[in-house]
Amino acid sequence: MKWTLICLAMLFTAAARSQDYKVVFDMTSKDSVNQQSLVRQLDVIRELNPASQLEVVIYGMGVSLVLQDGSSQQTAITRLLNDKNVSFKVCAVTLQRQNIAQSRLLPGVQVVPDGIYEIITKQREGWGYIKVAH
Amino acid sequence: MKWTLICLAMLFTAAARSQDYKVVFDMTSKDSVNQQSLVRQLDVIRELNPASQLEVVIYGMGVSLVLQDGSSQQTAITRLLNDKNVSFKVCAVTLQRQNIAQSRLLPGVQVVPDGIYEIITKQREGWGYIKVAH
Amino acid sequence: MKWTLICLAMLFTAAARSQDYKVVFDMTSKDSVNQQSLVRQLDVIRELNPASQLEVVIYGMGVSLVLQDGSSQQTAITRLLNDKNVSFKVCAVTLQRQNIAQSRLLPGVQVVPDGIYEIITKQREGWGYIKVAH
Repeated sequence: MKWTLICLAMLFTAAARSQDYKVVFDMTSKDSVNQQSLVRQLDVIRELNPASQLEVVIYGMGVSLVLQDGSSQQTAITRLLNDKNVSFKVCAVTLQRQNIAQSRLLPGVQVVPDGIYEIITKQREGWGYIKVAH
Repeated sequence: MKWTLICLAMLFTAAARSQDYKVVFDMTSKDSVNQQSLVRQLDVIRELNPASQLEVVIYGMGVSLVLQDGSSQQTAITRLLNDKNVSFKVCAVTLQRQNIAQSRLLPGVQVVPDGIYEIITKQREGWGYIKVAH
Repeated sequence: MKWTLICLAMLFTAAARSQDYKVVFDMTSKDSVNQQSLVRQLDVIRELNPASQLEVVIYGMGVSLVLQDGSSQQTAITRLLNDKNVSFKVCAVTLQRQNIAQSRLLPGVQVVPDGIYEIITKQREGWGYIKVAH
């Protein structure tokens, strides 16, 4: 197996990589596989890249991910919300249209006026963009 | 409820935001939920950001969105097609492969030689990119 | 039919287009429709744009695309792997988590330490980004 070499290479390059590891994730899915994948990706990136900055923008049907009473990933999300380099931002238009009170969001989840504008602003600032889907 | 404050914030920042609100949407889905979401997003963005420029690039299985005889969103698309700041562009390769005559497209829908090239050109020009999926 | 004109236009602009036709595809799907679409898109782009550079980054559930014993597109992928302007890169974290030995990958498929970092690096270098989904 070449895993040992690969792991060494990962550790070796992690420091350099960390500085420019900024990603905005576009999350519009209520699919539990997508929710799991996203959480796993956030965990791996954060573990290997201490200086990375990650932001998840949630709109459309993605909102269940960050509801106190609706998330299949509540424990993991709560942990990630305590990481100052990770943020979860929900679109206010989505909340309003689905009649979801802010009090139902997990503590620490932020609300932005417009999810799509948040995403394209990050893109313009040079952040990488990943659409969560499969 | 904090909706009033959020709505005020949205109106307040809309003017500044409008100038740089340019998005290309990547649409390859025949899923009616995706079609509805896309139309709703276009409507909201246009309403709040008068100077925004939006382009929907359609290829693969997304083409039904703009067919006269196949779109679940015909009324909304027709309305959006009358907005000079919104354009719908279908990939010619997709039309040819699926043997769809241009006469079947809703009036005002444009044809581009290559949908993917259209998207990456907009990305290179600094437009935001949103993949429509869930 | 306007296909003749469109085809001429496509040929005419292909040479100019080729130089800046660089795309990274984000592939996390095991869906056979997505696999077929991706292969078809790669084939069309390569045929019309000799200087184009295409890279497919595979992670999550997308890995079956490049397994010797699991790809519905094995013939097509093998052909594309012989094209020096096309590359397929699989995330090492994905392989490790799914316990997939590198020997199971189609010959020529590359392994990268981190699929998402590979994608955002290409984005930063000015490559176009296409999420494969429908």
